[in-house]
Amino acid sequence: MTGSSPRAVSRRGLLTGGALAAGGALGAAVAVTAAGSDDPATRPAATTPVAEIGLAVEPFHGTRQAGVATEPQAHAAFVALVLRPETDRKALGRMLRLLSDDAARLTQGRPALADTEPELGLLPARLTVTFGFGPGFYRAANLDERRPPSVAALPAFGIDRLSPRWSGGDLLLQICADDPLTVTHAQRVLVKDSRPFATVAWVQQGFRRAAGAEPGRTQRNLFGQLDGTANPKPGAPLETAVWVPDGPTWLRDSTTLVVRRISMNLETWDLLGRTDRELSVGRRLDTGAPLTGTDEHDEPDFTALGSGGLTVIPDFSHLTRSHVAEDRLRILRRPYNYDGVPSADGTADSGLIFASYQADITRQFLPIQRRLAERDLLNEWTTPIGSAVFAIPPGCSEGGWIGQQLLG
Amino acid sequence: MTGSSPRAVSRRGLLTGGALAAGGALGAAVAVTAAGSDDPATRPAATTPVAEIGLAVEPFHGTRQAGVATEPQAHAAFVALVLRPETDRKALGRMLRLLSDDAARLTQGRPALADTEPELGLLPARLTVTFGFGPGFYRAANLDERRPPSVAALPAFGIDRLSPRWSGGDLLLQICADDPLTVTHAQRVLVKDSRPFATVAWVQQGFRRAAGAEPGRTQRNLFGQLDGTANPKPGAPLETAVWVPDGPTWLRDSTTLVVRRISMNLETWDLLGRTDRELSVGRRLDTGAPLTGTDEHDEPDFTALGSGGLTVIPDFSHLTRSHVAEDRLRILRRPYNYDGVPSADGTADSGLIFASYQADITRQFLPIQRRLAERDLLNEWTTPIGSAVFAIPPGCSEGGWIGQQLLG
Ligand code: HEM
Ligand code: HEM
Repeated sequence: MTGSSPRAVSRRGLLTGGALAAGGALGAAVAVTAAGSDDPATRPAATTPVAEIGLAVEPFHGTRQAGVATEPQAHAAFVALVLRPETDRKALGRMLRLLSDDAARLTQGRPALADTEPELGLLPARLTVTFGFGPGFYRAANLDERRPPSVAALPAFGIDRLSPRWSGGDLLLQICADDPLTVTHAQRVLVKDSRPFATVAWVQQGFRRAAGAEPGRTQRNLFGQLDGTANPKPGAPLETAVWVPDGPTWLRDSTTLVVRRISMNLETWDLLGRTDRELSVGRRLDTGAPLTGTDEHDEPDFTALGSGGLTVIPDFSHLTRSHVAEDRLRILRRPYNYDGVPSADGTADSGLIFASYQADITRQFLPIQRRLAERDLLNEWTTPIGSAVFAIPPGCSEGGWIGQQLLG
Repeated sequence: MTGSSPRAVSRRGLLTGGALAAGGALGAAVAVTAAGSDDPATRPAATTPVAEIGLAVEPFHGTRQAGVATEPQAHAAFVALVLRPETDRKALGRMLRLLSDDAARLTQGRPALADTEPELGLLPARLTVTFGFGPGFYRAANLDERRPPSVAALPAFGIDRLSPRWSGGDLLLQICADDPLTVTHAQRVLVKDSRPFATVAWVQQGFRRAAGAEPGRTQRNLFGQLDGTANPKPGAPLETAVWVPDGPTWLRDSTTLVVRRISMNLETWDLLGRTDRELSVGRRLDTGAPLTGTDEHDEPDFTALGSGGLTVIPDFSHLTRSHVAEDRLRILRRPYNYDGVPSADGTADSGLIFASYQADITRQFLPIQRRLAERDLLNEWTTPIGSAVFAIPPGCSEGGWIGQQLLG
């Protein structure tokens, strides 16, 4: 890098390979790679095309926010803020102008204004920053009548063991990128710029497979299950499930987000045989196929009977209980794994940052969650320990800011 | 994936591209990628060559352990264990046979024996597992006379604010891979299999740039500095600095590791101007060049004088204080960034898992650390909060196990 002045990475240039020829800051990496691979046999990375993972850019501006329908990145930080008592509608406008500007720059590989570590802002790595408004946000803005009615604390479920440590929050920043340093830096910038307006309620850091490690594959969670198979496909199914199609400007092209921290008890799960594990979900561990099929994407047959006269997919399996056929009732799951530090005796602190997007929490998420809470074999090994809900307002165009339709 | 039976990934096949033709479990990913890229404009990952990041393999067997001279992977977990009182020399042999077998399999993309999540063991992603023996290991084995004398708790330094939470340990497992799920799974398997013999003292999880994000570039730490520039180069310099060239079988081809958890105060660092930051290290933030040069790898000139008659690189800069010219006195730094959860007021919990390899701690590491502790401008913003030392025994050949030369 030959100067501290940042260099915008054009998305078009990237896709046409033009970024490699851009020279300067990031182009330099190419030369270093070629010259520095002293032992090619042990340096497979040297043959990975530069500019694929680090320089890839997701748009920030648009009708809808990025980070929802976006192919999930490898790393995420969910940052929930609590507004200071003095943060009113006007202050919220100032705050969101500032944070939108940070996000608009960082996602495009440009440092934030007054970025104190500008060099850490140069690799976008598909960074997205998605803003969510909790119930307290609307109260602070004195605009509770504009709150999507389904954005309210969830009812208590019998399975819940919620901790305030992982629950609630007035403003959510969902920060995702394929590079962990990029996530860390964006988090730092956004938290710093939030300080005059809010404090940090909780931060949850999660991961999926590294970018490029298993392209196109459904990710696995820490139980080893393929997780994400039955998500609504891009196109009409996803459109219908996720986005609010009409209404006032602050609702159209919005969606909602439920974040549940769910601890997964690896100790007891690991004592189960494979058959029991597969029965508890209704899908095979290796292929992810429903127990009535052979391929991951085969339609499950919930009526097929086994030799014992019972359904092949158990009636209380996670699959049967969570399955929804109609697109307008489905949810888009975009979860991340978490793995904390094991205790002295080796007990894992593992689980899922379950994150689901849907047009309406009451219509889509709640019926599924109610059925699961009532009866789901998987409950034996999973425990919700955190819960939060947010409206995801529409996106903004260049020069605009997130929340403008609501507050502006 | 068409079955739960694991499939070994041949390293040669990988490098010649043969893995793509291998079909079966991992070959399937290719087809899915091609078929599943519904919106090419938003899916740059789809054009990344499969098998580069996920399938790349580092050898486990060899004269020396992997994970030392290995090009650093993106993710690391440092797991320190404390041996149970009843774990004697014989038990240590059983433990290391078991853990070596786990490591030999997992690093090659094969699940461990009795792996309860075998599907999580299929992506090696350059996984390495490096074993380290702390002073307590030799005591437990009743072999203190074979302990490399320099492997002993470091003397206390005035700058230290050490916590037992991050210090000591009898057996270290340094687990590194380019995929975070691969690290998590390997950690889980190794900790589980250690249970009869040891408890967990501490685990430190760290990261560098994602694989493929900035190939060939020196990584940046959370101060935004290029960190690793002046490491001994592969070949003679690294040989001399890192590996013990002779002695009994349990010493030859061994090395030592110092792990220091060093908190970095981003709050006060961010208040400094760029010039002051650059003076504190003696290198530029953008290029990493010494203040007397223009390129990252220019030799620093510690005698060059500035207009004020002072040296251009301050005498108390980190560079001046840590610089060593002679290879046999240098250390190989292989650090990882850590970033915990910020406090309510947004104060970052960031720092470096400083890890350095050297043939002899007393001869190489200690003089540098003493000089730095005595006077180093960087001390103003960094605080060692954890410390541990380990011997890294030689490697093993197929059928052998780590520690065999010592305990066998
Ligand atoms: C740690 C907790 C959980 C685990 C380990 C888990 C795991 C799974 C797995 C393995 C599948 C099958 C593959 C797939 O389609 O992704 C699945 C499907 C599904 N899960 Fe979960 N899940 C968890 C929590 C939840 C929660 C809290 C909800 C919603 C309240 C939920 C809703 C669904 C839905 C809607 C499907 C798709 C069902 C279908 O239409 O086929 N899951 N889950
Ligand atoms: C958080 C703490 C630390 C930070 C942020 C830090 C940062 C840096 C930076 C930016 C450089 C210059 C670039 C490079 O060559 O990598 C450097 C060099 C170096 N550091 Fe550190 N360092 C830290 C702790 C330590 C410690 C604890 C030691 C050893 C006791 C150490 C030993 C060295 C050495 C030997 C060099 C190379 C000097 C030369 O020969 O040019 N550092 N460090």
